[in-house]
Amino acid sequence: SNMIKVAVVGGEGIGPEVTDQSHRILKWFSARRSIPVALREAQYGLIPYLATGKVLPDDTVEAMEEADAILWGATGGPETTEVPPAARKAGSLLSLRSKYDLYANLRPIVANPALADSAPLKAPVLKDVDFIIIRELTSGIYFGEPRGIETLPDGQRRGFNTQQYTTSQIRRVARTAFELARTRKGRVCSVDKANVLETSVLWREEVTALHQAEFSDVELTHLYVDNAAMQIVRAPSQFDVMVTCNIFGDILSDCAAMASGSLGMLPSVSLGPPDRLGRRKALYEPVHGSAPDIAGKGIANPLGSILSVAMMLRITLNRPDDATLLEKAVDTALAAGARTADIAEPGAKRLSTQEMGDAVLNAL
Amino acid sequence: SNMIKVAVVGGEGIGPEVTDQSHRILKWFSARRSIPVALREAQYGLIPYLATGKVLPDDTVEAMEEADAILWGATGGPETTEVPPAARKAGSLLSLRSKYDLYANLRPIVANPALADSAPLKAPVLKDVDFIIIRELTSGIYFGEPRGIETLPDGQRRGFNTQQYTTSQIRRVARTAFELARTRKGRVCSVDKANVLETSVLWREEVTALHQAEFSDVELTHLYVDNAAMQIVRAPSQFDVMVTCNIFGDILSDCAAMASGSLGMLPSVSLGPPDRLGRRKALYEPVHGSAPDIAGKGIANPLGSILSVAMMLRITLNRPDDATLLEKAVDTALAAGARTADIAEPGAKRLSTQEMGDAVLNAL
Ligand SMILES: CC(C)[C@H](C(=O)O)[C@@H](O)C(=O)O
Ligand SMILES: CC(C)[C@H](C(=O)O)[C@@H](O)C(=O)O
Repeated sequence: SNMIKVAVVGGEGIGPEVTDQSHRILKWFSARRSIPVALREAQYGLIPYLATGKVLPDDTVEAMEEADAILWGATGGPETTEVPPAARKAGSLLSLRSKYDLYANLRPIVANPALADSAPLKAPVLKDVDFIIIRELTSGIYFGEPRGIETLPDGQRRGFNTQQYTTSQIRRVARTAFELARTRKGRVCSVDKANVLETSVLWREEVTALHQAEFSDVELTHLYVDNAAMQIVRAPSQFDVMVTCNIFGDILSDCAAMASGSLGMLPSVSLGPPDRLGRRKALYEPVHGSAPDIAGKGIANPLGSILSVAMMLRITLNRPDDATLLEKAVDTALAAGARTADIAEPGAKRLSTQEMGDAVLNAL
Repeated sequence: SNMIKVAVVGGEGIGPEVTDQSHRILKWFSARRSIPVALREAQYGLIPYLATGKVLPDDTVEAMEEADAILWGATGGPETTEVPPAARKAGSLLSLRSKYDLYANLRPIVANPALADSAPLKAPVLKDVDFIIIRELTSGIYFGEPRGIETLPDGQRRGFNTQQYTTSQIRRVARTAFELARTRKGRVCSVDKANVLETSVLWREEVTALHQAEFSDVELTHLYVDNAAMQIVRAPSQFDVMVTCNIFGDILSDCAAMASGSLGMLPSVSLGPPDRLGRRKALYEPVHGSAPDIAGKGIANPLGSILSVAMMLRITLNRPDDATLLEKAVDTALAAGARTADIAEPGAKRLSTQEMGDAVLNAL
């Protein structure tokens, strides 16, 4: 069929609450803007575990398997301790990233002028911040072998992990970065630690080689990861597309989060390899986690999840105008003063998760 | 003799310029506050390389070997390319850290109220920021074996590094953190990635075990490194002592740098194991590097190096009152408007490196 299949998996903690709102918005676009999506809801976490012994039951696996895009909430709620580690691991986010080979994780960082007051960074620093971190997501130290904890002859223990990258793992994520830069300001900054790590020496060489071979129209610069962390705080508007390995991307994207005012604002997508037609399996999710401390209270910020739907409109659904429409609606809601707790100034009115969803829908 | 031996090694890039100023100040304390230090200057870098074939000539090795403390500038000037990589590596900062087993790297982050205008962070965020990052410096992914780049059967290349920690490597740096916390606000935050890495699982277990066995009077919390990066930008005043592994400490200390207004403001010390009397070999250096772009211009900020002398007064020279005297002199100079280029507001007068040294000396 011509329907584009989307699996909606709210998951745990605040995941279901925020996904409820982004799901509503996706349905609005489907109905009002005639987008041919087939939505299928599926469960993840403690509830299916109690019923089936799996956090990721067969029905959910099937829904995700057939989906072109997955709208994902969060994993690891307050109930985490009720699921044994082995059962949790079997269906973990890391194993899903690996299973679907979702190697390119895109995390846009955009400073909204309406939130300049609530951000810890000063307004001049936030001016024109609009960049995107592309984090390699299926290799590096997250997945490298050997790994483990061993007991040494003298009774001490030794923990070890392997950071590793191959030519093709580096090149394919760098390709995503260069291609994306061509649709933006045409600049890629590659981040590594080539003054210390061989993995980074190879990273730099391969990114440079691909650049010279196919993307010399794009501007390429390199930064060491420590300097990149500082520059992200000092002058984030200098960046357009940043590409880096799994662990550096994990740290740098949180380091950058405050430029958008709150972790709750940040969307993301993780993309798999393109098929013959250039289509890529995609998992859309807010950058924030399950936030057990506020789960169930209805106060979480749904904008990270809602803006992930905007990314879905742009990438999987190929509706750039609708993506822009949704992003503008979020801007309008914020400019009108809509604030969840995480982005509210002291004393200001705080909307519930649902009310923030309403505010965006009303602005559409 | 009862003299405390200090080797002064300015090194390369802006290293000699900034060290000239901290050296002057150390001499002031030696003379005016009767501190029994024997200062020995030694060279590092291109100049000795051209004369002897070594960036770290025998005379410098001897000076550092016999020293209780080393006042270090920076390595890697614009002349870097004139020294072959092998010769450079033989005398690198990494090999020195390793040779003297300088496993505990202390990086204080203090927000100076006088600099609130020039910092990218807002004044409310900067209020009461005074914490110290303790970075493990001689193990982890910086030194782990195996490491390298290999060619695979299919012609691709693979880069690999090993992140590793043993029980004793973790415990000794955690001990430094707990002991330091006892002299401060009594709080340690240990940073890891225990939700992904076995090295971090072991790290967390060993830090916790040492805490329970010997330091239960200190408050211990744990953060994942991504969250720590965000919290450092969002609300840095929550921290007292932070302890973490080599690579995370490298990134987080640069991420934190902007809370002090500029990388140029940050001092550090790297400490070796205590001897029978509790004395530890110590290498004091500003956190900034050799900054080839401004080397030789006399505009670098010497305060990172000068505040490293304050750390030397407190730790190696056991003169806490003199340390405070020097820190207060820096505060006085800043409050009176003394600014090098990196911390000057647009249009404000910019002091040279030497003039900033003068300003601090005048305030003593
Ligand atoms: C939960 C954790 C394993 C995950 C990661 O480190 O990738 C998270 O921090 C993220 O950034 O998606
Ligand atoms: C120059 C480099 C090897 C060094 C490091 O990564 O340790 C530097 O960044 C530092 O923080 O001292």
